[in-house]
Amino acid sequence: MTLEEISVQDLNPEAFIKEKGDEISSAVGQGVAVNALSGGVDSSAVTMLGHRALGERLKTYFIDSGLMREGEADHIIALFEDLGVPVEKINAQNAFFDALKGVVDPEEKREAVTHTFYAIVFADLAKRCGTKYVLQGTNYTDVEETVAGIKRQHNIIEQLGIDPEEQYGYRILEPLIALRKPAIRALGKTLGLPEELYRRPPFPGPALAARVIGEVTPERVETVRRATSIVEEKLADTGAFQYLAILHQDRVTGIRDGKRDYGLQIEVRCWESEDAKTGSPTRLPFDLLEELSQSITDQVSGVVSVTYNITGKPPSTIEAL
Amino acid sequence: MTLEEISVQDLNPEAFIKEKGDEISSAVGQGVAVNALSGGVDSSAVTMLGHRALGERLKTYFIDSGLMREGEADHIIALFEDLGVPVEKINAQNAFFDALKGVVDPEEKREAVTHTFYAIVFADLAKRCGTKYVLQGTNYTDVEETVAGIKRQHNIIEQLGIDPEEQYGYRILEPLIALRKPAIRALGKTLGLPEELYRRPPFPGPALAARVIGEVTPERVETVRRATSIVEEKLADTGAFQYLAILHQDRVTGIRDGKRDYGLQIEVRCWESEDAKTGSPTRLPFDLLEELSQSITDQVSGVVSVTYNITGKPPSTIEAL
Repeated sequence: MTLEEISVQDLNPEAFIKEKGDEISSAVGQGVAVNALSGGVDSSAVTMLGHRALGERLKTYFIDSGLMREGEADHIIALFEDLGVPVEKINAQNAFFDALKGVVDPEEKREAVTHTFYAIVFADLAKRCGTKYVLQGTNYTDVEETVAGIKRQHNIIEQLGIDPEEQYGYRILEPLIALRKPAIRALGKTLGLPEELYRRPPFPGPALAARVIGEVTPERVETVRRATSIVEEKLADTGAFQYLAILHQDRVTGIRDGKRDYGLQIEVRCWESEDAKTGSPTRLPFDLLEELSQSITDQVSGVVSVTYNITGKPPSTIEAL
Repeated sequence: MTLEEISVQDLNPEAFIKEKGDEISSAVGQGVAVNALSGGVDSSAVTMLGHRALGERLKTYFIDSGLMREGEADHIIALFEDLGVPVEKINAQNAFFDALKGVVDPEEKREAVTHTFYAIVFADLAKRCGTKYVLQGTNYTDVEETVAGIKRQHNIIEQLGIDPEEQYGYRILEPLIALRKPAIRALGKTLGLPEELYRRPPFPGPALAARVIGEVTPERVETVRRATSIVEEKLADTGAFQYLAILHQDRVTGIRDGKRDYGLQIEVRCWESEDAKTGSPTRLPFDLLEELSQSITDQVSGVVSVTYNITGKPPSTIEAL
């Protein structure tokens, strides 16, 4: 398969919606399809697209992997309820944490998350709904980065030579695969998504599992979840491209109540970037950096040290994992 | 033993030199004593004090532990040669790296370095010189922090209830034990040390072993040694209290020549402090931070990411280990 990008300049959103809607309808026929909504712009656009094409025959689920941010599930479900799209929450925390137990290599983590989504969660949902069709928001950059060997995106299956029907028992429809983020944002706006959703900063598939260096346990995810809340709140007004908190596995010496405390370290990254291909650290004022550090060490149990990334991409990448 | 601090205000350097010289002479008698010079202000002051009291009967050694900074041994030996004090270099790299093999806990690292100094290196030197006396620059803060349980300083022996004569076969003379750094700097000046030495920023005993999170190997020390050179050169003019590079054990994803590179991270710390009891990160300009990152990722093999510490002490400490 050769894949031609459709740039945001070349995209005619109404025509695209019609064309992809027809493709989805003709593939699914009179049956149903399922999709997983994370609240990111890709899965949000796919949900709207699929809902327009199939109506109630698209069954949309929010997968509570245990790796999402604070309050994320309920907030996203409520937003879609307002749009007239019912979303059911599925608790799959045990499946994900079991798969991640003892895994420290970032590529193996992605693999564990991917495998849990495709082989367990989607396979269950497809079976439960009696369908062979899963709709998914794979985009052009996901394919490109995976094929180039930079980072295996969690949602890349067929491009790696895996036949999902043979492997998992269902087919994957990827209507956004020729689009990059700017085009998907434009499409999302036309599909009636609220600005909060079509402008949402990227938060890739392995979610908080990609924000924990070393083993991903419920406790360690809770630590980075709290730090993430603080970073997202304090940096929301910076206009930066992306900002994130990373929990390190390394421990460092701190001091609490006059005694040694061998504690945790959080790394904060905040990026200036157009398209995530290159980026540079945002030159945040030191007042804000120190306020971030103060809030994180005060409010996140066990953290004694906070650092700020000062390396651009390349040779760094946007995320650490 | 109760120990009364002599503050820099109360210190009469000439009287102190006379008094401590007499104590050293009377303890050592007509024999010889040995001491290890690292080039820090404490061991430099002790070397001058002992040399005044004992002349050539003080045998001074520079222990090449493999953990010192770039070019440090030769530079320090040359400075003391100019002062008329002969210093012999001892290659003890194998002893230290053997003791550090597989050790990751910071306190166990300090213990391994301490044990190698006292049980192997000093014991050998004392035996070789036929003496029972080792002169050492232990200071008031070392004792205080060890007793408070914050951080075991590598040179604290008797204060932990260890009798060095019984344990190692020699006695330890600690003429600076009632002084903190400012008083030792004043003393060093009176003793004729060049400004470079009596003003030298602290570089505690475990040296680069305290700048490596995780296992201390010759390769990992070489990595942090190169980063340390860059940080010390670029931050020399900041007037900061202390600045350092730390090699993390955690690996992070980077990108080199368009391909994924799962590489190393260096953390830079630069401190504003009066006395190391509290401190805050220096508000370095981002131009300088980015220049640091650029030089480190360009010149230190394997490093794809550099962070800057933004947490004060407390709850952080000056060093990470």
